[in-house]
Amino acid sequence: MVAVGVDYYPEHWGKEQWDQDIALMARTGVKAVRIAEFAWSRLEPREGEFDFAWLDDVVDRLSGNGLKIILCTPTNSAPVWLYRRYGETLQVERTGRRADTGIRGHRCLSSPVFRRFAGRIVGLLAERYGRRPALIGWQIDNELEANHCNCPHCAAGFRAFLREKYGEIGALNRAWGNDVWSGDFADFEEINTPLGDKYDYGWLNPSYMLDYERFASRSTAGFIRFQRDIIRKYSPGKPVTTNACFSARTPDYYRIFGDLDVAAYDNYPSLYKQGERSNPQQAFVLDLVRGYKRSNFWILEQMSGSFGCWAPISPAPRPGMIAGYAMQAVARGANLVMHFRWRTAARGAEMFCHGLLDHSGVPGRRFREFAEFCAQINALNIPEDAALKSKVALLYSYEQEHAFKIQKMSEGFTYRRQAELLHRAYMSLGVNVDVIEETAGLSGYAVVLVPAHFVADDAVVRKLERFVRSGGTVVVTARSGVKDPYNACLTRELPGPFAKLCGVLVDEYDPIGAGSAALSTPEGKKYAATCWCDILTPQTAEVWAAYDSEFYKGRAAAVRNRFGKGRAYYLGTVGDDALYRDLAVETLAAAGIPHGGVLPPGFEISVRENEGCEFTFIFNNDGEARDLRYGKETLRFKPFEVKVTRRPPTRSPCP
Amino acid sequence: MVAVGVDYYPEHWGKEQWDQDIALMARTGVKAVRIAEFAWSRLEPREGEFDFAWLDDVVDRLSGNGLKIILCTPTNSAPVWLYRRYGETLQVERTGRRADTGIRGHRCLSSPVFRRFAGRIVGLLAERYGRRPALIGWQIDNELEANHCNCPHCAAGFRAFLREKYGEIGALNRAWGNDVWSGDFADFEEINTPLGDKYDYGWLNPSYMLDYERFASRSTAGFIRFQRDIIRKYSPGKPVTTNACFSARTPDYYRIFGDLDVAAYDNYPSLYKQGERSNPQQAFVLDLVRGYKRSNFWILEQMSGSFGCWAPISPAPRPGMIAGYAMQAVARGANLVMHFRWRTAARGAEMFCHGLLDHSGVPGRRFREFAEFCAQINALNIPEDAALKSKVALLYSYEQEHAFKIQKMSEGFTYRRQAELLHRAYMSLGVNVDVIEETAGLSGYAVVLVPAHFVADDAVVRKLERFVRSGGTVVVTARSGVKDPYNACLTRELPGPFAKLCGVLVDEYDPIGAGSAALSTPEGKKYAATCWCDILTPQTAEVWAAYDSEFYKGRAAAVRNRFGKGRAYYLGTVGDDALYRDLAVETLAAAGIPHGGVLPPGFEISVRENEGCEFTFIFNNDGEARDLRYGKETLRFKPFEVKVTRRPPTRSPCP
Amino acid sequence: MVAVGVDYYPEHWGKEQWDQDIALMARTGVKAVRIAEFAWSRLEPREGEFDFAWLDDVVDRLSGNGLKIILCTPTNSAPVWLYRRYGETLQVERTGRRADTGIRGHRCLSSPVFRRFAGRIVGLLAERYGRRPALIGWQIDNELEANHCNCPHCAAGFRAFLREKYGEIGALNRAWGNDVWSGDFADFEEINTPLGDKYDYGWLNPSYMLDYERFASRSTAGFIRFQRDIIRKYSPGKPVTTNACFSARTPDYYRIFGDLDVAAYDNYPSLYKQGERSNPQQAFVLDLVRGYKRSNFWILEQMSGSFGCWAPISPAPRPGMIAGYAMQAVARGANLVMHFRWRTAARGAEMFCHGLLDHSGVPGRRFREFAEFCAQINALNIPEDAALKSKVALLYSYEQEHAFKIQKMSEGFTYRRQAELLHRAYMSLGVNVDVIEETAGLSGYAVVLVPAHFVADDAVVRKLERFVRSGGTVVVTARSGVKDPYNACLTRELPGPFAKLCGVLVDEYDPIGAGSAALSTPEGKKYAATCWCDILTPQTAEVWAAYDSEFYKGRAAAVRNRFGKGRAYYLGTVGDDALYRDLAVETLAAAGIPHGGVLPPGFEISVRENEGCEFTFIFNNDGEARDLRYGKETLRFKPFEVKVTRRPPTRSPCP
Repeated sequence: MVAVGVDYYPEHWGKEQWDQDIALMARTGVKAVRIAEFAWSRLEPREGEFDFAWLDDVVDRLSGNGLKIILCTPTNSAPVWLYRRYGETLQVERTGRRADTGIRGHRCLSSPVFRRFAGRIVGLLAERYGRRPALIGWQIDNELEANHCNCPHCAAGFRAFLREKYGEIGALNRAWGNDVWSGDFADFEEINTPLGDKYDYGWLNPSYMLDYERFASRSTAGFIRFQRDIIRKYSPGKPVTTNACFSARTPDYYRIFGDLDVAAYDNYPSLYKQGERSNPQQAFVLDLVRGYKRSNFWILEQMSGSFGCWAPISPAPRPGMIAGYAMQAVARGANLVMHFRWRTAARGAEMFCHGLLDHSGVPGRRFREFAEFCAQINALNIPEDAALKSKVALLYSYEQEHAFKIQKMSEGFTYRRQAELLHRAYMSLGVNVDVIEETAGLSGYAVVLVPAHFVADDAVVRKLERFVRSGGTVVVTARSGVKDPYNACLTRELPGPFAKLCGVLVDEYDPIGAGSAALSTPEGKKYAATCWCDILTPQTAEVWAAYDSEFYKGRAAAVRNRFGKGRAYYLGTVGDDALYRDLAVETLAAAGIPHGGVLPPGFEISVRENEGCEFTFIFNNDGEARDLRYGKETLRFKPFEVKVTRRPPTRSPCP
Repeated sequence: MVAVGVDYYPEHWGKEQWDQDIALMARTGVKAVRIAEFAWSRLEPREGEFDFAWLDDVVDRLSGNGLKIILCTPTNSAPVWLYRRYGETLQVERTGRRADTGIRGHRCLSSPVFRRFAGRIVGLLAERYGRRPALIGWQIDNELEANHCNCPHCAAGFRAFLREKYGEIGALNRAWGNDVWSGDFADFEEINTPLGDKYDYGWLNPSYMLDYERFASRSTAGFIRFQRDIIRKYSPGKPVTTNACFSARTPDYYRIFGDLDVAAYDNYPSLYKQGERSNPQQAFVLDLVRGYKRSNFWILEQMSGSFGCWAPISPAPRPGMIAGYAMQAVARGANLVMHFRWRTAARGAEMFCHGLLDHSGVPGRRFREFAEFCAQINALNIPEDAALKSKVALLYSYEQEHAFKIQKMSEGFTYRRQAELLHRAYMSLGVNVDVIEETAGLSGYAVVLVPAHFVADDAVVRKLERFVRSGGTVVVTARSGVKDPYNACLTRELPGPFAKLCGVLVDEYDPIGAGSAALSTPEGKKYAATCWCDILTPQTAEVWAAYDSEFYKGRAAAVRNRFGKGRAYYLGTVGDDALYRDLAVETLAAAGIPHGGVLPPGFEISVRENEGCEFTFIFNNDGEARDLRYGKETLRFKPFEVKVTRRPPTRSPCP
Repeated sequence: MVAVGVDYYPEHWGKEQWDQDIALMARTGVKAVRIAEFAWSRLEPREGEFDFAWLDDVVDRLSGNGLKIILCTPTNSAPVWLYRRYGETLQVERTGRRADTGIRGHRCLSSPVFRRFAGRIVGLLAERYGRRPALIGWQIDNELEANHCNCPHCAAGFRAFLREKYGEIGALNRAWGNDVWSGDFADFEEINTPLGDKYDYGWLNPSYMLDYERFASRSTAGFIRFQRDIIRKYSPGKPVTTNACFSARTPDYYRIFGDLDVAAYDNYPSLYKQGERSNPQQAFVLDLVRGYKRSNFWILEQMSGSFGCWAPISPAPRPGMIAGYAMQAVARGANLVMHFRWRTAARGAEMFCHGLLDHSGVPGRRFREFAEFCAQINALNIPEDAALKSKVALLYSYEQEHAFKIQKMSEGFTYRRQAELLHRAYMSLGVNVDVIEETAGLSGYAVVLVPAHFVADDAVVRKLERFVRSGGTVVVTARSGVKDPYNACLTRELPGPFAKLCGVLVDEYDPIGAGSAALSTPEGKKYAATCWCDILTPQTAEVWAAYDSEFYKGRAAAVRNRFGKGRAYYLGTVGDDALYRDLAVETLAAAGIPHGGVLPPGFEISVRENEGCEFTFIFNNDGEARDLRYGKETLRFKPFEVKVTRRPPTRSPCP
């Protein structure tokens, strides 16, 4: 059954507090507790001296109260004695300096010394607790980033990665185009990780940088596999994961979770009131996480209060947000939602990352909303195999995300935004979109969205051609087909390998950035465009929209191409919501996918189902109470309310 | 008598210039001259070779012309030979690099080598000039900051400070909560000063950082005592001070001036035209300085012209500003106002920090305004013991200032602002406010203002309870009672130790930051709130104002509590000026303190008095000429004009 | 004849591509090709192993197709093996760290090891290709900056420069005013280059910084002469230059080009739409470049497409811009315009600095505009000695530019802006302005504009006095006559040495920065002023404009002084365009220089002529099509169109 959990740090509190807390958790309907995330210094207070007694006690008390346990490996922060005694375990920053202590996540993932100590504590934890019935899973480390350490070990690892990939240095020089700026290497040994204060990405060879990002993701993945293998040895059958988040150094999560048993995410919707009053991109992010393993997932940290510490403290979650965003995660595939955190820390750098209970420990409004959410989830009895089904897929890739971070297109253009704009259009029609890896199979889908497939993968292009030829519909957007796999530019006319599928050529482009252009369709619909304008010449395609301004007024901006039994669209610009919505309506109609018309902004509908039952979630992702005309009824929603209906309504649990 | 002085750098000018300058000073009415501030390289041009002849000459000429002298110790900038020969005397920055030469204030205050050389030059100066009758005081160094050097000496000093404070490492680990992020130390030796490029405050443990700030202040204070003791040995009876300013590394000035004979400040009101046309915060700052020793003070540098150099050059002081702001300082307790500087430097980095005389040395408009100010001050004959009296005190603390810098509350919330808002409200009623240290005695006060007493001091709370119980009025504002003395969060319901005094509990807070909320009082008055919203449940208190918007509409925002014979207010938000003014009116009425009604914005009134006479200052702190209805008269003020009236009007000086 | 060229990187492309490219170049009308700019790693792939075969081949193919060649020395980027084996060849940054590889321009210009290797490759190139008839010139390195390296060699060079300049350390201490902040040096050996993260210019002695800038320019010039001498030895009679650009470290280009045969510039007008729809400052920049050697010049890189890479990609050049801005360069004295670049790079950091051909190599709109430009230029047959003539000169200096960068005046005040405002006013009347070095002779000029002659050169002042005395007209603007040659302030009344010439004294100034003031003339004209307000007292001058606001309302802001047979204006503020235009009209009338009245904004007119013919260029520097009333005709201009008329119209080429 889908369950609610909390993140707990027993090492911060006294034993008398443990009992009170555990009793309250059980009473509230909490089913699982995540522990030990940063507890290394309490587990190994001095080198080789271990203290598991307190953790034994915690595990006993939790399991004794019927609570399940997610155990974390505490490797995000080693004890200070380790860094002081073995300085090589600290990351080297881009300045060439070792990090200092006092922060977190600053250990070198590839340091043999660090691995020795990390492997030992992980092994001891796994051996001790790995077969406990209450244990339902493992979290490796915390919010791991792509490993950007610049120490000699990591630099050697980067060179080994390149040597294996390219075999001989000439091949690398050719692939990267090192004749530019006399950058040819005579030997792999001449290659460094990217150091230097003034080295922002834009000045370095993007081929080098993309290979570096690939290496950095692999390096992190290697550290995760290192821990996973230790855990599996002692804790067979228990799912292993890690808690993903987004940062400036996001790794390739498809690769990361490919090595793990379940995807997991730390879910912190913004608490600031925005122009849009809500967080429309939340659904996209959750769909992305569900796509990591094309399966339901876990939330290991879920927003529970104002967020502060390394930024001014955010506003408090408004009424409805705590339950609403937690239920939204369930609606989009979460089987476990663990709120961060049970008690707000009273000490240390995170004391204003508010949990469910404030510093006083007195349950307040937020706790009450959480308790209601627990009760609701526990009453619903949603089976874990109840899944979202979709006829629409959106291809996503960290290769592209990294490539677009390395080289900025025009002002305002981001890869994520291209994907969100497409995703949001189908969502607004109540149609679910699976966000999947670019290389994933397309079986079962009728419409495939391909935002900015920049670094072109021929296998992906051929797959899409086969898909369309046999009747599928594809939407490809600007900046697709630009690069070869080495992040160098293809010397074909754009959209390169997509030209045939889309029946179009890009004559020229105008990166208008913050500027804007006007569009209109042959039927007279008007849209606004921004960021980027491909000037198109249809080959076999017909014009879907043309520019209505700029020096290319009258030239095609978007086209539709019949290809085999299906059709391919190429959108050469970045439009407004109306454009994407009309495109969604048209493609759904062509694919014969039904939808219920345009939802009011912010309303989200999803369905989780298995063979026996079906749960429909309707979410008012908005800070105002609103009505929704749904079927024959008019439903009244409170701010951020999620209404869940079940069919058949009575059986529990469904088979 | 209150006197006017100037800052002079004879080492920059030839002897023929000295005579001209000194004659002009004397003629203008200048009474004192500050010298030798940065003159070390001219006093000790090579290691151990001293040249005092020129300074002897200057001292003779000044005293020969009846001018008094403030002598500076020149330790802010050592000669280049010292840094080059003894590299350890240079500060180590947070990057771990030594500072380089060419700037100022970049010496390590704790380096034994630096202390050896500094002690020698200070001793020689004190021995040589310390008993000269013309000498009226000493300035140690220049604009000292909290000592943030990261050299081995300073790091060892920090560890010694912690060892002394905590005794054993377990006590420190517990107090700081080092179980968070595995930050436990096994030994004091593992602790560093906060190094690293990416270490901004928010990522480091606030307990660690506040102790570091305390150490940094103490380290600076130790350097000052080191010099003070040398000076006192050779120059008994001469007051010793240092010139305070505000910077990113402001030390705890209560501690600094606790060791010195008189408080002193460098007073540079902004010259930019702001929305408010004036500098309303100037009065607060001067009251703060007067509170350092609860006594009148010195201005060792007073604005005299456009300020430039490390920023674009500011606008010129408009007519009236030079005299007006200097007289404002006197009005608020300055006994000596020394204008920075007599002549504008022609060379070096400060050449566009304009003095009274421009580079040409030709007296101009600014000089004429200064001369009129000298004449006015000299005619007034204000006795140095004429003091401001106040029934209202505002508690201020650098502990709180540092704690709020380490952890930002919501966007826009600063500690200083909370204090200024309260202060300004009483000022606007013509009521003087003493700004005093939190731990100071409250005798003589009827109203005590307690802005954001964040790091709670139980002794302060008990003192306030006694004060209110016996009839006093207290105003406490949001973010009070949050922390324990280790800068960890109290685990009591907010406002923690103030709950009883204020008769209120904070159920929850909404850090709205740049957002806004509406307030109204039971009587129907309306206010705007911003930054922070405590949602209050009165216990024994009654509602003073409630929210009129947000999800806590109708909930209490501010309360009034009868406690013993007095009353305590708790203000859970940040209001507009009208709110603070109404609060001031009410509290003054309750305390039986008379006032003359609301002054037009920018008008300031203060009174200095001793047993024999009384001086009333009315300041038009505004760039426009304006009328003021005062008593039965209508007074016409020029921009920035200060009118001074004396009672009894004739005796001079008063006894 | 004036000719069009392209920048080509054959090392990036295969031989089959070379033939296609060269054939297309020849067909398009290209006359010259620049090669080998960054080719060192392909010419010397391993230490001492050289490969010239491919370059021989390229040179043969180009010359075989009738194309002329500009050969570059490839010293901007050494091969990686050189940096790895000889780390001392890498620049030391202000942090004290060596740069790392992967970028460009990061070699130390003064490293003996670097010079040894650079000298060898340059010598081999010069020896091999220096006498080839197709070779028409040399480009040394690429976009050289003032040498701000902080390595021991460069620091020693700086000290040697100072030792030679000042002889003994006391002279330097006095000149720099090192008594400020105890900055006296005991020995030249104590002096460093300016190191340190927190050392921005404002905190360091401006005398030190200006000498450092002078040294940095000289250091770069020395590196250029080092290469020039090698080239001249083997390649006699072939002009040697370097391609200038503007950056944060612009060297003194008068000094740089004084050592070279022809001035050259990389010309990239902004492609962003601005408030002004065009690039009004382009004409100024080109006139500045023409003044480097008071002669026609080369454009070695000319904008050809969107610019990206270390910034988001810019908009595409709108129709007309490619030809228009290239022709504008010709109109202002370019004899060679080489478009950067023929093909857009497919690899490396510059792949989004778009050339004439996109990545696909398919000629598009931009290429067609370029081809039309080639045809137009080739048809015009403009002789290289056809020159611009001018009766108006504007004095410019990198001394001033550096001094104003070191010390910011008020907000918004830049030296460049002062020059542009004057220049633009005369341009708007169709009057050509020569921008010349401050020390240049004035023969032939009737009006001389002197923007912000900050660091006063007495010889310049005397020259201007002679010029005016004998009938010339001079306009001097605010912040003139402020500094001595050591960048210390003169202790004379402002405008110091200009006081006599301009018959005026500055009583005081108000650096209003972003604020504004009103002006009016005795005749009642109104202007707006900003940035800076000198408050003037005319001595022998008459008021030209007075302030109409601020506390100096009624005081003079600008004056006109009869001096000998001529007149001198002093403008004490920064005005609006109308002010400068009226000043231009008046001074032209006084000097008897005819003009055709005010052109609509953005229209530019220039004439190139030799003894036999005259070419008139009219440029619509604007993104809109517009009419121009010219003589009796109304001419219709497309956006960015340049119309060229020739007299006599038929002879070709003119004698």
